[in-house]
Amino acid sequence: MSDKDKVRIIPLGGLGQIGMNITAIEYGSEIIVIDCGVAFPEDDMLGVDLVIPDITYLKENEDRLKGFVITHGHEDHIGAIPYVIKELNVPIYATGLTMALIDNKLKEHALENEVEKNVVKYGDKVEFGSLSVEFIRTNHSISDSAALAIQTPMGVIIHTGDFKVDYTPVTGEPIDLQRLAYYGSRGVLALMCDSTNAERPGFTSSERTVGKAFESIFSDNKDSRIYVATFASNIDRVQQIINAAYRHGRKVVVQGRSMVNVVETASQLGYLDVPDNTLIDIDDVDEYPDEQLVIITTGSQGETMAALNRIANSKVRKLQIKPGDTVIFSSNPIPGNEKAVSKVINELSIQGANVIYQDAHVSGHACEEEIKLIYSLVKPKFAIPVHGEYRHLKAQAKIANDLGIDKQNIYILQAGEVLSLDKHKAGVTGKVKTGSLFVDGLGVGDIGNVVLRDRQVLAENGMVAVIIAVDRDTGVRLDTPEIYTRGFIYVKESDGIMIEMTDVAGEIFDFLFNNGIQDLSRIRTEIKNAVGSLIWQKMKRRPMVIPIFVEV
Amino acid sequence: MSDKDKVRIIPLGGLGQIGMNITAIEYGSEIIVIDCGVAFPEDDMLGVDLVIPDITYLKENEDRLKGFVITHGHEDHIGAIPYVIKELNVPIYATGLTMALIDNKLKEHALENEVEKNVVKYGDKVEFGSLSVEFIRTNHSISDSAALAIQTPMGVIIHTGDFKVDYTPVTGEPIDLQRLAYYGSRGVLALMCDSTNAERPGFTSSERTVGKAFESIFSDNKDSRIYVATFASNIDRVQQIINAAYRHGRKVVVQGRSMVNVVETASQLGYLDVPDNTLIDIDDVDEYPDEQLVIITTGSQGETMAALNRIANSKVRKLQIKPGDTVIFSSNPIPGNEKAVSKVINELSIQGANVIYQDAHVSGHACEEEIKLIYSLVKPKFAIPVHGEYRHLKAQAKIANDLGIDKQNIYILQAGEVLSLDKHKAGVTGKVKTGSLFVDGLGVGDIGNVVLRDRQVLAENGMVAVIIAVDRDTGVRLDTPEIYTRGFIYVKESDGIMIEMTDVAGEIFDFLFNNGIQDLSRIRTEIKNAVGSLIWQKMKRRPMVIPIFVEV
Repeated sequence: MSDKDKVRIIPLGGLGQIGMNITAIEYGSEIIVIDCGVAFPEDDMLGVDLVIPDITYLKENEDRLKGFVITHGHEDHIGAIPYVIKELNVPIYATGLTMALIDNKLKEHALENEVEKNVVKYGDKVEFGSLSVEFIRTNHSISDSAALAIQTPMGVIIHTGDFKVDYTPVTGEPIDLQRLAYYGSRGVLALMCDSTNAERPGFTSSERTVGKAFESIFSDNKDSRIYVATFASNIDRVQQIINAAYRHGRKVVVQGRSMVNVVETASQLGYLDVPDNTLIDIDDVDEYPDEQLVIITTGSQGETMAALNRIANSKVRKLQIKPGDTVIFSSNPIPGNEKAVSKVINELSIQGANVIYQDAHVSGHACEEEIKLIYSLVKPKFAIPVHGEYRHLKAQAKIANDLGIDKQNIYILQAGEVLSLDKHKAGVTGKVKTGSLFVDGLGVGDIGNVVLRDRQVLAENGMVAVIIAVDRDTGVRLDTPEIYTRGFIYVKESDGIMIEMTDVAGEIFDFLFNNGIQDLSRIRTEIKNAVGSLIWQKMKRRPMVIPIFVEV
Repeated sequence: MSDKDKVRIIPLGGLGQIGMNITAIEYGSEIIVIDCGVAFPEDDMLGVDLVIPDITYLKENEDRLKGFVITHGHEDHIGAIPYVIKELNVPIYATGLTMALIDNKLKEHALENEVEKNVVKYGDKVEFGSLSVEFIRTNHSISDSAALAIQTPMGVIIHTGDFKVDYTPVTGEPIDLQRLAYYGSRGVLALMCDSTNAERPGFTSSERTVGKAFESIFSDNKDSRIYVATFASNIDRVQQIINAAYRHGRKVVVQGRSMVNVVETASQLGYLDVPDNTLIDIDDVDEYPDEQLVIITTGSQGETMAALNRIANSKVRKLQIKPGDTVIFSSNPIPGNEKAVSKVINELSIQGANVIYQDAHVSGHACEEEIKLIYSLVKPKFAIPVHGEYRHLKAQAKIANDLGIDKQNIYILQAGEVLSLDKHKAGVTGKVKTGSLFVDGLGVGDIGNVVLRDRQVLAENGMVAVIIAVDRDTGVRLDTPEIYTRGFIYVKESDGIMIEMTDVAGEIFDFLFNNGIQDLSRIRTEIKNAVGSLIWQKMKRRPMVIPIFVEV
């Protein structure tokens, strides 16, 4: 089918690209992009700090690109903006807090004045030629989250962003179900719905239940100093900790760079309501007895450099854990962080803290019944599960099918796949270039798979360098090869294996040279193989063997 | 207090030594050792295959060492035996299956005839001079598990091994609660009880509930090929899969080296009852339709090299996953393996498999109420929680205290701590040398912290070698320095950073040399610092910089 007069949905990250949220929606001469997030490196991406999307497709179509519309302020939705803005100067549209968090990021890259920033309110409709976007209130683990109603000539596309249904949120209003129903009753072409918790039955509990848990924990631990670790971006959670502290006559100390930043930004913008004289500086901690203190801290995921880990390891002088202290983990470990979290819990326990890691957290994502509710209000013709691993998208696909949507109208899209839709039909009609760029230090995209593979080998078994001095004119070997190792084993020069490696390398060189082979790259390969085999045979290890010729 | 006439309990692994189970019990001129396990490497132990205990203390006291008594056949209880036996030839005592699994290990090291092996039965009492040990039946996720009643002149010590209370085990009898009660009624000095699940309320379900789950899953998936992944050592689990297969008229294919080994060993010894004509060879798979096949496989922890991962990645030609296949994970992810397991689930889902990862597993360890039961039967004077992270031991300590044991009679021991007990008192009276030895390939203990630190640096940022040829006689630099990198960034020789590094290294060398500094180790340090600073300043990275001088 021809793509003319069709609306096209193109995930530029997501499945196959380890979770970066960035999706192009286009029609005719307009493209808008939903979100622009980073992924965090997988275990085998050694030394990589961040993973950002390859935006080749957007650069090639910059003339049609009208704006970035952002659903909420989490890293996997806004983290790549500074990197992308350096290459593509396009207006950004987001709600107040989301934009403030984007602005903090832009400032870190000295880009805050380089881009057009448009703060929108719920209900605002932003026009982009043939496309328009309305921001709809939702609930999530960060304030000011939005779903998007994208009007296209082929029909409305609803994108939920990350959401849950919270009838009793801590601040603000519940998700605008009426507005979703309004669109549903007029006919929705496609629903792109958050799949994170699609495998979990039932409903996600209200954020308010965590407040009740705090109330009960604070009451049970009236005499002890209380530490609470949570996500800095979860402002409602921070609000509830502050509320509990205030009710129990405690002062609050905020620890961790991102927690300090968010509390500051959110207070300034009115998203956080801190009673006067509640926050105190860490330097004044000694003026208050334990039962009058709460410490709100980052590090709930066991991050090595975060405040809680530093506290657990006695690196924060004013906050030394003592027997009887209470530490609340107001969080669940994100998959992959379980061991790191457990390590911090053990450290805290060893120092005598009473660690509470149950019941003080709720998810920010919709479970099965909430997803069913959204489908039932929106009643889309096509379902495009988003946000999650394949297993989660598939679980939502099953839910959609159970609710009566034909299997052939449900699309699980790989990154780069182009889904073309008109009012009646949809189909994958092509694939655009996508990919992941690794950020390491100041470098973006300068390390790739070869470098990562080398790091993997070095990590597993270290390296053995074989240095051979060669006469530049005659090609003759000038001396005994020298062996340098790092990360291999603890060896001395006189060890048998060192002598054997030296001998093998020298013998191979001379044998090849004496047989007329003077091509150093050929000799390099042979020495590499011979020394590698020797080490494998003797030690069952495979370090990286690096023959280096020095021509003098 | 003097240690003479006291019984001493010395964990030689465990807390502070990442979980190796090995504990010395000694009195006068006798020492016995309970279990002899390996730990699996932590994330930062790059390239390490296994971690085994430092047995310096046992070697120094070999004349008193009478035997190893082994509670059950899991790796963290038997895995270090071959390494230890090479240094300490001491008789081993274990039940039938446990000994068979030990023997398999000894064979891999060609040690099966080098050590005295004593198979014991439940109820057998083994005498070691002033000490004796009775093996008591328990339930666990491997057959033939035992608790130990260790009689000493100061009183009886009960060690539970790893256990749960299963009133309706699949094979064999329930845990011998009467025997534990018998000892309890006569007075028990100390209880060393499994803490793994001490944080979990309630009871661990019977292994038999998993059989019911299989029955229901098999009934729901009558038309599809069924794969079941579980732990090879869980013979009762394998038995239940075979039973379900037989009842549903399915043939069974066994996949994965350890699964094949265990099925073979357990069948020979009568621990596994396989109906005739049930097992088939993988080569005959094509002769049976999907609905007549069950594949039992290793890889339930997402291990890269295990059979299930190979199947998920289409590397087992005869077992290609098809839409409609059912894959059951009869396991929970061990902490740290969550992401690997999820990756396999995603792979299987992408290929269309229906993946079931709930309800088809129960733990092998006692929960809170079972621990209370054991305490209530044994009624020890002293409690020494064992087996678990600090948080788990502490949870058991709390349970013991709730049941009326004085806090001062509860001991959480670090590796090496010596707990001395007489009939009335206990106390930590010293510390012996313990530690971890890393096994990497064929090497034992030849990599240590320096090597691991180097691997960490290499893993994060790779390495930059700076090669400088120097005249052996005059010390003069002979040529432009050469730069070699691996795992650093993708660079060409002509790149700015390469030229700058070359220049800096050459300039520093000449500057020092011209100022009379010819000490190569001093020059090495200066070049390392200068090149390192340059890279940090330009790229915010810290590769390992290795200056190498070639004297010719």
